[in-house]
Amino acid sequence: MLTEMGLHAKQAARWLGRTHSEQKNAALMRLADLLETSMQGVLESNGQDVADGIRNGLSPAMLDRLTLTPARMRGMATDLRSVAGLPDPVGETFDESRLPNGLRVHKQRVPLGVLGVIYESRPNVTIDVAGLAIKTGNVAILRGGSETVRSNQALTALVHQSLADSGLPVKAVQFIADPDRARVLELMQLHEYVDLIIPRGGAGLHQFCRENSKIPVITGGIGICHLFVDASADLQAALPVIHNAKVQRPTVCNALDTVLVHQSIAEQFLPVVVESLGQAGVTFRADECAAEILSFPGEQGPKLMDRVYQAGSGDFDTEWLSLVLGIKVVSGLDEAIEHIAAHSTGHSDGILTGDPMHIARFIAEVDSAAVYVNASTRFTDGAQLGLGAEVAISTQRLHVRGPMGLRELTTYKWVIQGNYDIRI
Amino acid sequence: MLTEMGLHAKQAARWLGRTHSEQKNAALMRLADLLETSMQGVLESNGQDVADGIRNGLSPAMLDRLTLTPARMRGMATDLRSVAGLPDPVGETFDESRLPNGLRVHKQRVPLGVLGVIYESRPNVTIDVAGLAIKTGNVAILRGGSETVRSNQALTALVHQSLADSGLPVKAVQFIADPDRARVLELMQLHEYVDLIIPRGGAGLHQFCRENSKIPVITGGIGICHLFVDASADLQAALPVIHNAKVQRPTVCNALDTVLVHQSIAEQFLPVVVESLGQAGVTFRADECAAEILSFPGEQGPKLMDRVYQAGSGDFDTEWLSLVLGIKVVSGLDEAIEHIAAHSTGHSDGILTGDPMHIARFIAEVDSAAVYVNASTRFTDGAQLGLGAEVAISTQRLHVRGPMGLRELTTYKWVIQGNYDIRI
Repeated sequence: MLTEMGLHAKQAARWLGRTHSEQKNAALMRLADLLETSMQGVLESNGQDVADGIRNGLSPAMLDRLTLTPARMRGMATDLRSVAGLPDPVGETFDESRLPNGLRVHKQRVPLGVLGVIYESRPNVTIDVAGLAIKTGNVAILRGGSETVRSNQALTALVHQSLADSGLPVKAVQFIADPDRARVLELMQLHEYVDLIIPRGGAGLHQFCRENSKIPVITGGIGICHLFVDASADLQAALPVIHNAKVQRPTVCNALDTVLVHQSIAEQFLPVVVESLGQAGVTFRADECAAEILSFPGEQGPKLMDRVYQAGSGDFDTEWLSLVLGIKVVSGLDEAIEHIAAHSTGHSDGILTGDPMHIARFIAEVDSAAVYVNASTRFTDGAQLGLGAEVAISTQRLHVRGPMGLRELTTYKWVIQGNYDIRI
Repeated sequence: MLTEMGLHAKQAARWLGRTHSEQKNAALMRLADLLETSMQGVLESNGQDVADGIRNGLSPAMLDRLTLTPARMRGMATDLRSVAGLPDPVGETFDESRLPNGLRVHKQRVPLGVLGVIYESRPNVTIDVAGLAIKTGNVAILRGGSETVRSNQALTALVHQSLADSGLPVKAVQFIADPDRARVLELMQLHEYVDLIIPRGGAGLHQFCRENSKIPVITGGIGICHLFVDASADLQAALPVIHNAKVQRPTVCNALDTVLVHQSIAEQFLPVVVESLGQAGVTFRADECAAEILSFPGEQGPKLMDRVYQAGSGDFDTEWLSLVLGIKVVSGLDEAIEHIAAHSTGHSDGILTGDPMHIARFIAEVDSAAVYVNASTRFTDGAQLGLGAEVAISTQRLHVRGPMGLRELTTYKWVIQGNYDIRI
């Protein structure tokens, strides 16, 4: 069955790859309209998924993620309209040159081809990915979570209608409804038809894809993120940055996990961090030196401040995804860089400093997808960084690093034009 | 053992990744000198490999590929000096912008990291890859053919000496000497340490890597290449292009495999093609229509011209790598594009035409790594296309397509600089 999907997808990809921007945008606008005008049917299907979810004892967080509301559906429509308004990267030409032998050479952006997208509970991903794929002339085979099959089918039906209404092939977006996990494995073997696997989900899904796919995978999703507070940092300005990076949305991959503090300011700064972030509900895992600073004399020896715990082994290799923050005192820039090299997942790491030499060294020596100077790690996001949209964040090194927007869903071909030239 | 190699490689990668161009170039120049001054030892090791090869009954072609001569070694030295003279892509900045929120953003080129390179008989690949890796700050784990282990070890020793003499880590280039094929499999599992697998060899090696690697692979190497001779082509000029594409070096992947000829010129042009290329030793596989044109009346019915055979099933899906050429008559541009879509491996395909509309459609609708207009397919090559050097030719769609030079051995990081900015 999946082979047939693959065949259909390849055919649709040739068609969509040469479709003009206007027609692709028309499909997106039509889909946005359908999400609003045909909302009722989708909400009913979603209601059944939610009812099943409640029966099956899904956690409130899971239920929240799978629930669609009129407001959420209008949000999806708004997002589609905004994607329709972005420039189409397909067809862009670059690296133009005339070679010494007279050949005229340039590169031209083309869609990647067929995307296999594997995601979990949130049904809005169906629309999100369908929109980004259509916009960039890519074709998508979607595989959503088993607990949202009915919502995803209802949404896919709207996608198909929008494609048909716009004169585009409905096979440009296909959905695998069979809940058997074997289908996921099967999808990852279809290298004849599928060009790229994009997992959207937690660390486990990413690892599963990397280990089992015969197709290139955009891995990412795990962010053990650091901020180093240097001796020369403006501490008053640094505090809100740390607060923002940890507290604003602790459940996502660009949230702060460990703050590294220069020893010369640790005694002054650490209690302030604990007090400020503690009020927001953060608890702390402190290394030995930080723990010493964050303790006070008790009757039977020193006691740790409220909400502060001694860091255990592995704590600095944990993506917290919650209101927990690792704290470590370092002797200086060198130790900070070494700690990041040893413990970062290469997602987002930053320095807060006033020292231009330290800025230069940190940028040169820290090799993460996003390297920050005097800013919150929370900016690692396609919309925040000006990409307009985002399909994934890559922490692997091939093809793209960091936020993956429209342009990152394309590849290029070389176009070489001559006058009946031969190679000598 | 390979895990240890991987660990060493990762450490060396951090070092080499931040090494200045001058020091990397010094290592290349030193290696070039060593290839000349320490030639004798390498030639002796190579002589033993060759003697074993003769004893083991290797083909003359294989023996030729594994044999080093003083001239070949001087050629390797010359190539290294030329790579040393190329611009270093590492550190280049691009996509600079200032976001509406005030953040200053740019991307900065960094090495890919650790390359696992798997190749076959030619020992010059050892020096070639070592040079390109060092130049781009990448670290390499090399695995050459079992029939050239001694040559490769002698060459690797020179690489190590050049690294040490230049103050760079000798672990930047490591060689797997163990001839057990299990080591290749092991290398392809080391995803914690190796960032990219580059196979340099035939189709079988590429397939083996794609199917077994847990690390991204640059696949390529298979080129079923086409030229379509349109009705409006300058036939006198087209003939040398077809001759060049097929005959100049038939054993390589950018050599022509099938020529598609517009029906309106087939009767005039095909006999000329057969006569001209036939003199160079080419034999032909003609589709039914072409065969009819290329036949003459015999006593018992029509007979095919000398060197012309009826194309069998699968002939148009064969990469010939020899002086064989498929010939097919097509009704026009549409059929040519359809044939290419069905039979090309996406390597190099071209049109010979005088029609601007057909040029535009061919460029838009043929999605190969290299799309040619009025030029030989033989130009798909890093040196020919101005890259200065080439590590592989990619026919996959991720990261790079077509010739892979220095810049294609890098990735990038985002650098985001602010003034203690927080995400709102």
